[in-house]
This record gives sequence, C-alpha cells and structure tokens, in this order.
Amino acid sequence: MAVYTEVADEDLGRFLARYDIGRVQSCKGIAEGVENTNYLLQTTGGRFILTLYEKRVDRADLPFFLGLMQHLAARGVNCPTPVLAKDGVALGELAGRPAVIVTFLEGMWPRRPAVSHCAELGAALAGLHLAGADFSIPRRNALGHAAWAPLFAQSRDRADTVQDGLAAEVDETLAVLDASWPGDLPAGVIHADLFPDNAFFLDDRLSGIIDFYFACNDLYAYDVSVCLNAWCFEQDGAFNVTKARALIGAYRRVRPLSAGELAALPVLARGSALRFLLTRLHDWLRVPPGALVVPKNPLEYLRKMRFHAGIADVRDYGVEP
Amino acid sequence: MAVYTEVADEDLGRFLARYDIGRVQSCKGIAEGVENTNYLLQTTGGRFILTLYEKRVDRADLPFFLGLMQHLAARGVNCPTPVLAKDGVALGELAGRPAVIVTFLEGMWPRRPAVSHCAELGAALAGLHLAGADFSIPRRNALGHAAWAPLFAQSRDRADTVQDGLAAEVDETLAVLDASWPGDLPAGVIHADLFPDNAFFLDDRLSGIIDFYFACNDLYAYDVSVCLNAWCFEQDGAFNVTKARALIGAYRRVRPLSAGELAALPVLARGSALRFLLTRLHDWLRVPPGALVVPKNPLEYLRKMRFHAGIADVRDYGVEP
Repeated sequence: MAVYTEVADEDLGRFLARYDIGRVQSCKGIAEGVENTNYLLQTTGGRFILTLYEKRVDRADLPFFLGLMQHLAARGVNCPTPVLAKDGVALGELAGRPAVIVTFLEGMWPRRPAVSHCAELGAALAGLHLAGADFSIPRRNALGHAAWAPLFAQSRDRADTVQDGLAAEVDETLAVLDASWPGDLPAGVIHADLFPDNAFFLDDRLSGIIDFYFACNDLYAYDVSVCLNAWCFEQDGAFNVTKARALIGAYRRVRPLSAGELAALPVLARGSALRFLLTRLHDWLRVPPGALVVPKNPLEYLRKMRFHAGIADVRDYGVEP
Repeated sequence: MAVYTEVADEDLGRFLARYDIGRVQSCKGIAEGVENTNYLLQTTGGRFILTLYEKRVDRADLPFFLGLMQHLAARGVNCPTPVLAKDGVALGELAGRPAVIVTFLEGMWPRRPAVSHCAELGAALAGLHLAGADFSIPRRNALGHAAWAPLFAQSRDRADTVQDGLAAEVDETLAVLDASWPGDLPAGVIHADLFPDNAFFLDDRLSGIIDFYFACNDLYAYDVSVCLNAWCFEQDGAFNVTKARALIGAYRRVRPLSAGELAALPVLARGSALRFLLTRLHDWLRVPPGALVVPKNPLEYLRKMRFHAGIADVRDYGVEP
C-alpha cells in the first residue's frame, strides 16, 4: 500500500471501547488498497475491516462515502457497511486519522477475470446504479471529463519522456473528446473505479463490491466504459469481445441502456481510458524516493485509448444496439 | 513487505483441494513480515495463515522450520503449526513457490511493550528453549558470531558514509568479541529474532510466538541478549532496567541461568547489537530502486552496542547474579 499507519494496541483498545462489537482477537494490516490503511479486525463479535483515512482522502467527502455505503447496503447491495459506535456515530479518530469500522465481505477478487465474472460484474454494476439513484448527497467527479485537461497540464512537458509523441496524442484526444462528449445521458451515483480488485467472488458468484472512494455523480454509461477497460482486455492487450458482450448484456438485463448511451460508449470508453492514462502518468512522473508502491504503467491505457478511437460502432464491442 | 507474490484464485482453489480444511471464504495478503508472502486465509473450517516462501529462504531449511514448529507446538508452545494435506505432507507448491498452511494465532503484537509484556516474553522464551531442547534437526546460525566479520567485509568500505568512524568502531568491537566470546555455555534451539512483532498478546498475556525463520542452534543466553536489545530500550534510546529485570527474572523462573551465562550477558548483548547493526547496515547500503520497504536505521543498534560495551556487571541490567 502507499500509506501505512501503525495502530498501537492500547489505542485500538480505547477506540474499540466506543463500539459494541466484542473484544479484539487479532488485527492485521492488509496489503491491499492504496488510498487508505486497512486492517482485518477479528473480535469476539465477528470479522470487520478497520479503515484509517490517509491524506489523499478529503475529510469533507467522508459523509458522502459512508452515507453511500449505508444507503446501498440498505438496498441490498453487498458492500461494506459502516458499523455505528454506541453513540450512533460511524466516524471516529484513531492514530490521528479519521477511522471507521465496516463489515467484512467474504470472497476473493479474480486475478484472471473470466467471461462469467464479467457477466456477474455487469449485473452488479447495474444494480448499484439503480440502488444509488435516490441517494441524496451529491459529489462531483473530481477526475471526470472536465478535469482531464488541467490534470494533463501538470505532466504535459514531461509526457514525451514516457513515450515519444504522447503529448500530441493526448492533446488531440482531449480535443476530440471535448467536441463529442455527451452531455444529456442518464446520470447518478457511479462507482468510477470498479476494477477486478474491487469485486469479490465466492464460487464464481459476485459476493461484494468494495472501495467507494472514487464514487461520485456522473454518467452511468461512463461507469460501464470504465469496466469495459478494466475487465475486458487480456494481459497481452487484446480486447475480448466475449467478455464485453457478457458484461454489457448482463448490465442491460438489470438496467436497460438507451440508444444514446450505447452510441456514446466508444467515446466514453476512450475518455475513461484517458482518465486512467492521465492519473497513471501523473504518478509515474512523480515516484518519490523510497516509494512504497511500484507505479502502474500508463502506456497500458494509451493502448486501450487507441483501441476505442478505432471503434466506429458499438457492434464492435459485441453488442447489438 | 519486501516481496509479494500474487496468488490467482483458481490456483488457490487447486492448492486447497489437497487439504481437508473446507472451502475458501477469503484470502487477504498481510502487510507484515519481510521474508515471505503471507495471506490470512479464511475457510469454512477456520482461520489459517498461508505462507509462500520467497527467495531469501533456503528450501533446504524448510524441513527444519516446519519440523521445529510441529515439535514446539506438540510440547505446548503457542506457535503456528503446519497443517498437513490429505497425503500427510505439510509442504506444497503454489504460484511457483514452496508454500505451507499454518494455524492462525490470535493476538496482537505490542507496539509499545510494557514491563508486563517483557515478563511474559521472558517466561515464553525460556519455555521455548526447554521445549526445543530435544529437537533433532540441527541448523547452524548463519548470522551468528562467526558470520559477522565476513558480513561486515561486504559493507566496510562504505560504512563511514553512514556515520563517521563506524568502520573503526566495528573493527574494534569485532576484535573485542573475538577475544571474549564465550564458547562453553548451554546451547540448543534459539528463536534468534524474537522482536515485539513476533510475539502476540491477548489481554496482556502472551498468546503466541511466530516467525521461526531465523531459528537455529546457538547459545540460549545469546537469545536472551537479542530480547534485551529488542524489548528493553525505549524509543529515545534509553535502557529500561525495569523491563530487563522483568524479562530476565521471568526467564530464570522457568529456566535458570548459570553464573557463566549471567556473566557473559554484556558481551553477548554487545554481539547481538552488532548482529542487527550489521544486517541493517548491509540493507541500508543496498536499497534497490523502487524498493518496497524502507530499510531500518542501523544506527539504532550502534547506540545499543555502545551501551552494552559500558556494562561491566550484570547488576547493571537490574539482575542479581
């Protein structure tokens, strides 16, 4: 993980005294997640995840994140649910950081997603969109379409050190997306980061969705395009049309996609590929000395962006309009 | 952790089919331990630790490590016990690495050890020494007294870049230790790395000892000296004589220390401080680009080494001979 806060046992004891979840039996730091510190907490009352929010998370966003998880869980979405302390409050403080205890979700994330995983994921994504539709707290997408040009401006002068011609290619893509970005599609709460490591499976059935720390209000079909990029390409960079068909097909059976949403998918997918290209490029150029994480290669998403630039029709994703 | 091997869910499923421990419910990488990859594995049969041995562990040593844990557990020591597969074999292979499932120990390691922890630890260390006395497989201490001069030779020319005069001070210490190192004290299986993060506590009682991957045959009193260094100094570098008295006193109530062992403690403690100074110096000078761990500061152990050099009598540790 990028950040890791040690919790002293006596501090943990004081923190847990606020809750009615039994005595601690073990508490182990988990090597997953890059935004926050996570512990797997076992008490006499069960298993939980203890999350300490590190600097990258804005405290002002915590009511949105915690409220959304409560909202979704109440509507049957399998996601971590904040555990309330005896005083009815979910958010506390531990080791100088905002901290929360959430319920533990069984399952493992798929290291090599299969077609069946993509179908499960598509249905779950649509269910999440429906369940979040009446959530009342808004949150702007800080990494949405409008943010890409200013984000790129921070890396533009060094972009060609990563790949020759990258700056010009991103400039051109930004211009194309500005001219073609859809403005009138159905929107609501989206996950915005539903990669395989955020989806748990048990016996090939989806058992839960985690990590809502990029969730925000944006186009539903944009969230679908994020998943196309994250789930439907093979290790060698090839697009797997069978996986795309399974993902989108299962999504549509739960929440129908309009003709406008389907037609916009190629430009949305090009945009979401650019979004991950840009954040990875930003991190790639700013690896601090002694960094605790190896940055992800931005060029994986350059290749995905180019793939979508070549898609003229949603049928090329294996989907009937 | 220093090394981290991803395990694909389908590979894990095949691996677990060898065992009779139920179906997997979750499997999360643990952010503890630097030598191996560890997962906290939950199945319908209970909680376990899944360990994948990385390159730093010599495969030829695995029968010693696994056999020792079985031997100690059979004699009542609370330590991880290898779980046998259906074919009666503990050691398997997963993700191209030797792999083993061991029992899960409840408890947390003390981030700020108190006097009561030191007393518990001392008694447990003595119990470990007694329980291991009849273990039949030998293992030389690869980081014992004889190894320090050749280990330092690999860092000597750059030692003064860490602290001016360090090379000469280590040379002098090596000479003193060579002239005074005891050869005829009671010896047997020692833990050799019993730092606070390798000792678990529940409600202030020691609940288990983990990480036997430095265990070997060496002087029992040397193991006591390792714990003096690891448990009895405060964050500011001050030696806490109350903790030392508690640790050694509790040890002696389980396994008496001879007059010779007590008299040798200052030179043994100076030696064990040098051992951790040298391995930390070695790692400090060789941090690879993009390293996943921040190396530990070797100078903490230079200060401890100097402290013990000034001890003329074991009474200075708060102990009556």
